[in-house]
Amino acid sequence: MAKVQKIITFGEVLLRLSPAENRKLSQAKSLDFFFGGTEMNVGASLAVLGESVKHITAVSNDIVGDAALSSMRQYGIDVSSVQKVNHPIGQYLLEVGSDMRSSQIAYNRLNGSFANIQPEKINWDSELKNAGLFHWTGITPAISEAAYQGLKAALVSANAKGLHVTADPAYRSNLWQYGRKGQEVLKELVGLSTIFIGGVNEINEILETSFSLDKDGFIEASKHLMAECPNIKQVFDKIRTGLSASWQKIYGRAFVDNTYIETDELEITQVVDRIGTGDAYAAGLIYGLRHFDAKKALNFANAACALKHTILGDVNLVSVAEITEVMQGNTGGRIKR
Amino acid sequence: MAKVQKIITFGEVLLRLSPAENRKLSQAKSLDFFFGGTEMNVGASLAVLGESVKHITAVSNDIVGDAALSSMRQYGIDVSSVQKVNHPIGQYLLEVGSDMRSSQIAYNRLNGSFANIQPEKINWDSELKNAGLFHWTGITPAISEAAYQGLKAALVSANAKGLHVTADPAYRSNLWQYGRKGQEVLKELVGLSTIFIGGVNEINEILETSFSLDKDGFIEASKHLMAECPNIKQVFDKIRTGLSASWQKIYGRAFVDNTYIETDELEITQVVDRIGTGDAYAAGLIYGLRHFDAKKALNFANAACALKHTILGDVNLVSVAEITEVMQGNTGGRIKR
Amino acid sequence: MAKVQKIITFGEVLLRLSPAENRKLSQAKSLDFFFGGTEMNVGASLAVLGESVKHITAVSNDIVGDAALSSMRQYGIDVSSVQKVNHPIGQYLLEVGSDMRSSQIAYNRLNGSFANIQPEKINWDSELKNAGLFHWTGITPAISEAAYQGLKAALVSANAKGLHVTADPAYRSNLWQYGRKGQEVLKELVGLSTIFIGGVNEINEILETSFSLDKDGFIEASKHLMAECPNIKQVFDKIRTGLSASWQKIYGRAFVDNTYIETDELEITQVVDRIGTGDAYAAGLIYGLRHFDAKKALNFANAACALKHTILGDVNLVSVAEITEVMQGNTGGRIKR
Amino acid sequence: MAKVQKIITFGEVLLRLSPAENRKLSQAKSLDFFFGGTEMNVGASLAVLGESVKHITAVSNDIVGDAALSSMRQYGIDVSSVQKVNHPIGQYLLEVGSDMRSSQIAYNRLNGSFANIQPEKINWDSELKNAGLFHWTGITPAISEAAYQGLKAALVSANAKGLHVTADPAYRSNLWQYGRKGQEVLKELVGLSTIFIGGVNEINEILETSFSLDKDGFIEASKHLMAECPNIKQVFDKIRTGLSASWQKIYGRAFVDNTYIETDELEITQVVDRIGTGDAYAAGLIYGLRHFDAKKALNFANAACALKHTILGDVNLVSVAEITEVMQGNTGGRIKR
Amino acid sequence: MAKVQKIITFGEVLLRLSPAENRKLSQAKSLDFFFGGTEMNVGASLAVLGESVKHITAVSNDIVGDAALSSMRQYGIDVSSVQKVNHPIGQYLLEVGSDMRSSQIAYNRLNGSFANIQPEKINWDSELKNAGLFHWTGITPAISEAAYQGLKAALVSANAKGLHVTADPAYRSNLWQYGRKGQEVLKELVGLSTIFIGGVNEINEILETSFSLDKDGFIEASKHLMAECPNIKQVFDKIRTGLSASWQKIYGRAFVDNTYIETDELEITQVVDRIGTGDAYAAGLIYGLRHFDAKKALNFANAACALKHTILGDVNLVSVAEITEVMQGNTGGRIKR
Amino acid sequence: MAKVQKIITFGEVLLRLSPAENRKLSQAKSLDFFFGGTEMNVGASLAVLGESVKHITAVSNDIVGDAALSSMRQYGIDVSSVQKVNHPIGQYLLEVGSDMRSSQIAYNRLNGSFANIQPEKINWDSELKNAGLFHWTGITPAISEAAYQGLKAALVSANAKGLHVTADPAYRSNLWQYGRKGQEVLKELVGLSTIFIGGVNEINEILETSFSLDKDGFIEASKHLMAECPNIKQVFDKIRTGLSASWQKIYGRAFVDNTYIETDELEITQVVDRIGTGDAYAAGLIYGLRHFDAKKALNFANAACALKHTILGDVNLVSVAEITEVMQGNTGGRIKR
Repeated sequence: MAKVQKIITFGEVLLRLSPAENRKLSQAKSLDFFFGGTEMNVGASLAVLGESVKHITAVSNDIVGDAALSSMRQYGIDVSSVQKVNHPIGQYLLEVGSDMRSSQIAYNRLNGSFANIQPEKINWDSELKNAGLFHWTGITPAISEAAYQGLKAALVSANAKGLHVTADPAYRSNLWQYGRKGQEVLKELVGLSTIFIGGVNEINEILETSFSLDKDGFIEASKHLMAECPNIKQVFDKIRTGLSASWQKIYGRAFVDNTYIETDELEITQVVDRIGTGDAYAAGLIYGLRHFDAKKALNFANAACALKHTILGDVNLVSVAEITEVMQGNTGGRIKR
Repeated sequence: MAKVQKIITFGEVLLRLSPAENRKLSQAKSLDFFFGGTEMNVGASLAVLGESVKHITAVSNDIVGDAALSSMRQYGIDVSSVQKVNHPIGQYLLEVGSDMRSSQIAYNRLNGSFANIQPEKINWDSELKNAGLFHWTGITPAISEAAYQGLKAALVSANAKGLHVTADPAYRSNLWQYGRKGQEVLKELVGLSTIFIGGVNEINEILETSFSLDKDGFIEASKHLMAECPNIKQVFDKIRTGLSASWQKIYGRAFVDNTYIETDELEITQVVDRIGTGDAYAAGLIYGLRHFDAKKALNFANAACALKHTILGDVNLVSVAEITEVMQGNTGGRIKR
Repeated sequence: MAKVQKIITFGEVLLRLSPAENRKLSQAKSLDFFFGGTEMNVGASLAVLGESVKHITAVSNDIVGDAALSSMRQYGIDVSSVQKVNHPIGQYLLEVGSDMRSSQIAYNRLNGSFANIQPEKINWDSELKNAGLFHWTGITPAISEAAYQGLKAALVSANAKGLHVTADPAYRSNLWQYGRKGQEVLKELVGLSTIFIGGVNEINEILETSFSLDKDGFIEASKHLMAECPNIKQVFDKIRTGLSASWQKIYGRAFVDNTYIETDELEITQVVDRIGTGDAYAAGLIYGLRHFDAKKALNFANAACALKHTILGDVNLVSVAEITEVMQGNTGGRIKR
Repeated sequence: MAKVQKIITFGEVLLRLSPAENRKLSQAKSLDFFFGGTEMNVGASLAVLGESVKHITAVSNDIVGDAALSSMRQYGIDVSSVQKVNHPIGQYLLEVGSDMRSSQIAYNRLNGSFANIQPEKINWDSELKNAGLFHWTGITPAISEAAYQGLKAALVSANAKGLHVTADPAYRSNLWQYGRKGQEVLKELVGLSTIFIGGVNEINEILETSFSLDKDGFIEASKHLMAECPNIKQVFDKIRTGLSASWQKIYGRAFVDNTYIETDELEITQVVDRIGTGDAYAAGLIYGLRHFDAKKALNFANAACALKHTILGDVNLVSVAEITEVMQGNTGGRIKR
Repeated sequence: MAKVQKIITFGEVLLRLSPAENRKLSQAKSLDFFFGGTEMNVGASLAVLGESVKHITAVSNDIVGDAALSSMRQYGIDVSSVQKVNHPIGQYLLEVGSDMRSSQIAYNRLNGSFANIQPEKINWDSELKNAGLFHWTGITPAISEAAYQGLKAALVSANAKGLHVTADPAYRSNLWQYGRKGQEVLKELVGLSTIFIGGVNEINEILETSFSLDKDGFIEASKHLMAECPNIKQVFDKIRTGLSASWQKIYGRAFVDNTYIETDELEITQVVDRIGTGDAYAAGLIYGLRHFDAKKALNFANAACALKHTILGDVNLVSVAEITEVMQGNTGGRIKR
Repeated sequence: MAKVQKIITFGEVLLRLSPAENRKLSQAKSLDFFFGGTEMNVGASLAVLGESVKHITAVSNDIVGDAALSSMRQYGIDVSSVQKVNHPIGQYLLEVGSDMRSSQIAYNRLNGSFANIQPEKINWDSELKNAGLFHWTGITPAISEAAYQGLKAALVSANAKGLHVTADPAYRSNLWQYGRKGQEVLKELVGLSTIFIGGVNEINEILETSFSLDKDGFIEASKHLMAECPNIKQVFDKIRTGLSASWQKIYGRAFVDNTYIETDELEITQVVDRIGTGDAYAAGLIYGLRHFDAKKALNFANAACALKHTILGDVNLVSVAEITEVMQGNTGGRIKR
């Protein structure tokens, strides 16, 4: 995959608020805040890894929108095409769980700034001109008709230009309130994509199939997906075992070149922050595919995902060097002086 | 005014977020939070002063709504009639100014939980049965048709029962987006009220007059208001001189029993938090009118308002003893051991 | 057990102070604070779970006592019978351990406000009129003669009214400085109780027996207790295995209806706060007994206790839904969106 | 005054707790803490200024007492004679006022560790052997009989050795609960002192006189004091004008060598912390008298006192250089690079 | 002045560390940190105002250097030409004064990363190609020979290209340790500049004259400077009166087009942060000169400078709208909703 | 080993800065700070354990140096021989890792205050007069020629006086930039020492051997070291297994009196802070050797080291009682009331 060309991401930026120290909201007097959002998280992580990234979104035309831009610039993201609209930026409030206590999220994102993006103001031909890859997730078309239209136009343009298109089509049932049916839309948009980041659950949801979750089911599901959506050439999945909110195990598996591959399992015994670990995987994978072969890319993605569990906030801030260390098995935590 | 009967307030509860240390949002990593909202602020302040207070509102049916209830209970407010609805609680983000730098607020309150209150589920006859006073502000009818309907029903019931009704009818032009005309609605609702907490600007806005801001203008405006809205028996105003965001002077004036009265001016040279100072004035006034004559009530209100400038958050947390000290001229800040 | 009737708790409220981040006191510049105290913790947890709870205590007649009231109200506890006395509220300073380092507590509670409660001013007949259950622990009668007299009067009245009385008679040897003998008092008061929350150690201490700690010993001890204190109908115990200050395992066992029951063991690998876990168990049990059968109640108690290890402060703030999730085996920490 | 000899202070060490940001206690989740206590404050300030200081007290035999020792050592105070007793260290909780809102203090010091000091274990002959000055305040003899006995023994020994004895005999009416009469005791102990740090109010209280507060009254009162207590050779007073809790003016005046002297007035418009400003004055005076003439010493004391208003906590941490700057009129706040 | 062309700044980036709450370092357990440095401050402020800015510097090749880049990007500064060298980034530790207590700074900047910049690696012809203005201060040539050489090359190139060159030639005597004589170097470099941001003191230092500080002296000094350094066309000065570290007054004056102009005085009674106020003035001036006439630019600069006193950190974060408000006399601190 | 005599340590004091909550530097707005440095850490830990300790070093002649002195005094260290020099104190910036993410350190210590110590101003004969033990590490001679000269002079004097000399000769390759060869210097200085705190790696580095890391290799290496450096009588090693940055296992082994001894392994599953654990081991060992036999001393050292993993900062703050508990196998974390 050509690595010099820039990466375009498109999606909602959310203000995340959460009490520190595993506090319940009613116990807190202040809230940590971060800007996140799945597509921006992927873009930010890629920018931290050294890629050239542009994120297209709409933020509020107020001090919060300004802070969102400031935050994106900090990672090195190009924000020159971000729209400003007179709607508040979406947000979520997170109570961070621990052990058997689950984290809880209360969203406030309906009718926010990104839902009110003006798709007709985005010139995708121009935005994608020197780009090599476009990344999208299933959250974006679930937000609003405008978001869907913006995304579809991007995918059509990307296809016309022959870009790589990575799809992370997670279906979130409590979104999709504007009228369209999630399954239909996601199937349409995956059809316009080239790399599928998801597993059996996602394939079953989109294609209304019922493949099993095991290795064979994954292989069959992947083949079926490629048959239904012939643009898709690769399928990359991530298997998580949650012993508790604090203790997680992950490994990656993929179906590439008609071959099944998988990584070793990595174990995180003291989760610092689980939010954004899937986005870290996607970013690691995209970086990996631009610099390595598929097997090494999958390992890179899995190590990036594991490391994200040790980073506060939505965005994975680890470097290529840190990921490479973990890929090489150096997980004993020696101090780097 | 009978003091044993409880006080009912009705209005939106907002989540307030603001960086500490006068930071700009882009400089902060955490945000202090408080629950506020003008009518709840008045109720909370009255509860802290020892009154029996019930607040009627709608909060989100999630962890944020739970935290709002917890916060109100902390002040001693009866929350047994609060509705829970599937809309996020409104909020505002505040950058706290200093000296010549103004504080800035970004709101996110449109279509929030209170805007979606179900007025038909409030049994005002029952809620107001043992109440002595109902307090409302001009924010509530500006939020949504449902909020307007709920408020109007309350005022009709309160009038039928002969309650005192305090009106703080500030006109906020950037609200009123649901269709009704602010001036008309406020005039209607002031007509259902007995005590007007506002001054020449408010009267001019509501009655479309143009009285001058000086003492004579205030007296004429008050008389005109009482002529137009014969239920109104008293008018209480507050005059603020802002030397800077950090240095303010305030005094109260009133037109009561056909007589003009005013207080001495109090000066705050190091404002801790200016939000909610008007609500502190209203609460001080209501408390004062239930316990003292109008002149002393006005002084109590002015001292309460001044003291609120020294309290962080939306709600005035000072005690009757602290307000009384200031009324007596003990403003030198001696340590109380 | 009837669930609509309110629950009465009686005991000392303590100000808890502790450095954050596992700091030693000499390393800290600020201290987190919470209000706790075993009986209040039980009451607060029950209020959070939705029960109607009243706590009777004595707090200091100063700003600290006011803050204690504010804190209790926040949980929804009825504080209308709390006394204010001219003695400082008791407190404890906690250095939070980790791994093999034990937490350390320095108390400052002798001759505090609760020790100086005026038992003659409590009208137990009135307080217990519509109550369904009274809860006490072995801390209360250890504090002072006044506390003992207040508690005994409560138990006599509760017995006369046929209330459920839950006893958590932990014997704390470094209390009991006012003259009475702990063993004698506890035996007397357990005799006035109906549900015993404790195990072999507590029975051995109170009855001066020496049953073994294993299952058979627990059954024998329970039978012996019921023979000595015939009011006691149920015995509920909790078995903790501490791998370290950070890693704990717990399960519950009980002797009910002449039958031994026990729960599965739950494991907490990253303890956030161990204080108040016993109170969480007691509260979970009381809630469970009012809503479920004894077996399910025991499971509810054990899950509540496990979850408390993930909550900062003395009080368990988890909801019925969160406890139910853990009871159903959903301990993998999935994010709730 | 000889400057090489060490200074001995004797008195209670208190744990001070206070919310930051002018918060009310019920608004705070954490409390800043400092160790203070008037005599220790004086000692610590003198140690920071470069003097050799030993503080004699009794602290609790627990982690809080250890932290108190650690804090005193940090300033450079010799703590080798501090007793450890099985009583909690005294404490006070401070809500910091602002503008017209007074600071409020809730004490918890009765029957604390210092009240239970064992005076018979202090070998004053040995402690005072190489000392040049002993400092005491009116708080110490108000705490307990043991504290009184310890102090009196110290003063007798100091007199026998010809030490300078500085007395700051503030009468605090809410102490003195152990039986002795404050006025009598203070008169006795001032009689054993050589330098009086106090003014007309203190003299009137101790000698039961009624001198006026103006300059002439001060001169007359000073003469009367020297007549009644012939050991007293110098009287140093401090006049404070409180415009608000945030805005204070101070100047010093003295009667020395039969002459009245006074300083210019210094104005503090943004008080950071007013606690311990009197102790800063006393420490500045003692330092000044050991290094300068009385006039310059008075100026040094007044500048030290003014600067303390800019320092958080009980103890004045400014250097000789910083005080000297202010004495020279450099109060414009230029940055020192 | 053409406003579309970008602005180039060149100078050291410093890590600033300071205790919050006016604490002394020995009282703090954590330090706020910001990245600053006079030239970067000017660049950041200009970027916040909307200008296109590139800063050229050298940072450490470690996690601190990465954080410095991240910080600059946040403001929108182009960091694509920043060098990474194997020397630690310079830093300063700031104790923030208050009232008559001066702030104190301890520097650690000698032989840091910027002192080790490689001037030969900067292609000034390329860097300045599309630029409109180059800004420098007297700090840069005082750091090291390499810094001097880099700056001189920039000025020669800027002159050749006809750029505006703003010089803020403050002479800092405790720098200049690498061998060159400050006065000579500054005179040389001012000779290569077009706009002088400084006053009588700076002119006297550079030209070894002794003009008086009053208006006439300023005019004479300005004329003399323009005679000695004929490239200089405008002189902009700022007059500060420090009542205390917390209370400052400032106004601007200038000699432009052979005419003396000055602004009204602005008063800041509660300084939040005085560091970087001179840089805010310079940035405001540069912005003003690119958008307004000299008189309005001077007012803009003075208002920007005043507002910086209300912003924490080194960089002025206020917007054009906020500055314009103050220029229009709206200094009463009304809340912007 | 005689225990009454004081212990002398000699080495650099460093300012440590690190973000809390495992944050990356670019995510933090404040940094926790501590003073550390390997030799000072050992001295501070010994002082906390009750030993009499003097640390000799050079700090900066500014507010940071003052704070370093204050910090050392807090532990009870005698700082009366610390030099003040006009160079900034060294520092390191630490990003704290977690799980498989390593901690990262950026140093800024070259040419700092300790590197510029004036060895000729230290009178070692006087300093070591009543001392019983001198401790050094391999960091000190790596800093500068002056540091090397100071250390060598100390060792020569200590040998002459027959003191115990503990050597912790870790070779840090990124130091040693002033010209001398680390291996040669360390061999020379170990030759002047009596107790070797290190293992096979250190022996191989110093003696340019290649013993294996297993038990036999350790025994052979120890014998070889004693042959080469006949002053060395005991060798104490520590074996760490890092499962991750958060999960570590350690045990101690030694070769003493021609006998191999080792401890049980202790496991830390939730590392709070790994920095300074080696210094905690050394301090525990020194304390142990002064109070117990070698076997018990080794156990004490291992328990002290394990406990340090639970303490924030560089210095081990646990007490003899806490270490003894762990030595006795009480690692279950019971609360100490």
